[in-house]
Amino acid sequence: MTKPIAVGLLGLGTVGSGVVKIIENHQDQLVHQVGCPVVVKKILVRDLYKERDVKVDVSLLTTSVDDVINDPEIDVIIEVMGGVEETKKHLLQALKQGKHVVTANKDLMALYGSELLAVATENGCDLFYEASVAGGIPILRSLVDGLASDRITKMMGIVNGTTNFILTKMCKYGSPYEEVLAEAQALGYAEADPTADVEGLDAARKMAILARLGFSMNIDLDDVQVKGITGITEEDLDYSKRLGYTMKLIGIAHRDGEKVEVSVQPTLLPDSHPLASVSDEYNAVYVYGEAVGETMFYGPGAGSLPTATAVVSDLVAVMKNMRLGVNGRSAVAPQYEKKLKSPSEIFSKYFLRIHVKDEVGAFAKITAIFSERGVSFEKILQLPLKEKGFAEIVIVTHKASQQDYEDILQQLRDLEIVHDVKSSYRVEGNGK
Amino acid sequence: MTKPIAVGLLGLGTVGSGVVKIIENHQDQLVHQVGCPVVVKKILVRDLYKERDVKVDVSLLTTSVDDVINDPEIDVIIEVMGGVEETKKHLLQALKQGKHVVTANKDLMALYGSELLAVATENGCDLFYEASVAGGIPILRSLVDGLASDRITKMMGIVNGTTNFILTKMCKYGSPYEEVLAEAQALGYAEADPTADVEGLDAARKMAILARLGFSMNIDLDDVQVKGITGITEEDLDYSKRLGYTMKLIGIAHRDGEKVEVSVQPTLLPDSHPLASVSDEYNAVYVYGEAVGETMFYGPGAGSLPTATAVVSDLVAVMKNMRLGVNGRSAVAPQYEKKLKSPSEIFSKYFLRIHVKDEVGAFAKITAIFSERGVSFEKILQLPLKEKGFAEIVIVTHKASQQDYEDILQQLRDLEIVHDVKSSYRVEGNGK
Repeated sequence: MTKPIAVGLLGLGTVGSGVVKIIENHQDQLVHQVGCPVVVKKILVRDLYKERDVKVDVSLLTTSVDDVINDPEIDVIIEVMGGVEETKKHLLQALKQGKHVVTANKDLMALYGSELLAVATENGCDLFYEASVAGGIPILRSLVDGLASDRITKMMGIVNGTTNFILTKMCKYGSPYEEVLAEAQALGYAEADPTADVEGLDAARKMAILARLGFSMNIDLDDVQVKGITGITEEDLDYSKRLGYTMKLIGIAHRDGEKVEVSVQPTLLPDSHPLASVSDEYNAVYVYGEAVGETMFYGPGAGSLPTATAVVSDLVAVMKNMRLGVNGRSAVAPQYEKKLKSPSEIFSKYFLRIHVKDEVGAFAKITAIFSERGVSFEKILQLPLKEKGFAEIVIVTHKASQQDYEDILQQLRDLEIVHDVKSSYRVEGNGK
Repeated sequence: MTKPIAVGLLGLGTVGSGVVKIIENHQDQLVHQVGCPVVVKKILVRDLYKERDVKVDVSLLTTSVDDVINDPEIDVIIEVMGGVEETKKHLLQALKQGKHVVTANKDLMALYGSELLAVATENGCDLFYEASVAGGIPILRSLVDGLASDRITKMMGIVNGTTNFILTKMCKYGSPYEEVLAEAQALGYAEADPTADVEGLDAARKMAILARLGFSMNIDLDDVQVKGITGITEEDLDYSKRLGYTMKLIGIAHRDGEKVEVSVQPTLLPDSHPLASVSDEYNAVYVYGEAVGETMFYGPGAGSLPTATAVVSDLVAVMKNMRLGVNGRSAVAPQYEKKLKSPSEIFSKYFLRIHVKDEVGAFAKITAIFSERGVSFEKILQLPLKEKGFAEIVIVTHKASQQDYEDILQQLRDLEIVHDVKSSYRVEGNGK
């Protein structure tokens, strides 16, 4: 039997425990696939004596990170502890000592992925991070495989399970946001502080990672435009439904020629779009390639077992490379210089809901603002409001540049007859 | 610049032309990914002077297969000519000369995949066949990646675009089978002789390939139970819809413990199932892994460009392996002995539509046959028929073994009051 490959684990929370369990329970398959056994040799924890739902010999545990990353017998570091600055230091240290790294840390990879990958390559090490994007979906590997023979022009993703759960329940039961959020928190689908999820930041991190890989460009987190779901009301969902759309928090990465746009925002998708039927806490990434056309990858976006499975898949890839002696060659440096579209180059349809004074000529004043900018309407609904003397107008525009649309919004807000711009969302494709 | 990798192409139909175009148009990306250029050196065709929609130097063309597979400078053979027995001989000859093979040939891989893969491994050659299953979906690679860290218990696939197109149109417009088939033929989605598609054979070939890989077992094409879509009527679709189901031609590969079942048959899926919304000529494969849970891969199942893209992805994998000197190590021999479930071990719910004489006690006689076998009903509809004195009964059973269900069908047919068993389908999950 060949010498086992030794793994050091940073973190033993739910994902870390899952990794330990999978390595134990699938030892036979691992040996069959890779040709040698794998053992967990050291595990960094905060508290040596905490009760855990996985049985681990206490002699494997340590509270000192150096015991793990400086152990000369450890070949691979699996990082499932989270955190950014400190964690980055540890992983850089590990890579510089020739240890391969598998991480599930999207915050870290979104912020410092380029730097870490460069250091890994310099040191002949693998750095894999499939679990950082959508736990149960092998999307990064599929992108890499597809890249050589196709040109990816668009990626659209539901990459945050918490917000998809909330929007699904809001749509299905007509419940208000706060109520569904509380339910999601009770079920463990949302954190006590849900900000990173509901404000779209978590999704933005994942889209930065996807766009960087899919477009082979150094996209930073700051390049992603972000809008969360906290402002979405039952009225918005009701109108979407009537117009044949489903509201989802969608990450979009779009390339036109050499320029790209990346954003995360609530978006109205036609009910027939493959992403529209992705419900509850599920994730999906839709990829459009020039040659292959539409493809979609669907699966659980998080959860300790799916994430742990993705981590172990990466570990297997590292181990196969070790057996073949070819580590550190899979990270491909970005091929293209980063070029972002300006707001005048980003085009989309928009959904807009405004409250106006119900006066003669009000409608004409509003439409004039759109037509001055050459933006036409696909759909218009006007309904009286309970509040006497006011009306609600819902508009779906044809394609407009973001620049024009923002100017229009500003002008509408300045208009005396406009009481309030209640909501505004991006629209993708055609409703009914 | 490193020496280019030379490719020999067997066949220059639509897929072959697509491969030539992609290699030409993506030369930069290929060099970036692999580190060396790739050239098409020889192409086997039937007619040297035929007009083609891709420009190829006539000096590259040959009508002799030996010119391609015996060319000592050719490293990789891409087989996109189709055919089984002759093609198998050519590929065996190529592998024995140390040439790597990429094929899109599902007929060949379903029948002789195990043998070809064994010969490839013996000769240190890669044999990749991603394009053989569902052109635009990287399902085989995802299965291989997932295998080491998870145990796949179920695969369900819409793996034939022609039948999915036909069923989608029949459902949507209530059109009869023959009419939609004619439309599909006119659009080029169905062959002049549609037998292999509509009888489920094409899907069975793909399921054999998927099951062999996913369960690591030597599943043969003969092990797949097959039923096609030719008997599906508008009435069946109408009842499915009313009961909250969508009819799809579904390939199922299911493992319980050590035993497996593989089948292709029209199946009623709940409208909320991810596969139910896969429309038109699209394909999707749903995979259930013990750890990762539900995942689904969606994309174009056929078409010259998606298939050519999958072929070139495989070519890239071969080239990367060549550059690393590690070819012939990716095919993993089956890990488990083949064990098929017997009909008494295969469980499913069933939809059944029968015409009976409308007599006192008829219903009691029918239900008695089910209850003798311990099979209970989930749903029953009874409706009068236009033909006086007859009624239509639609039943959805709870789970029953295939053995029991077939016995029940036989007894029903023998019953004097049963005029006809009109249709019978497998049901997966719960309708509304």
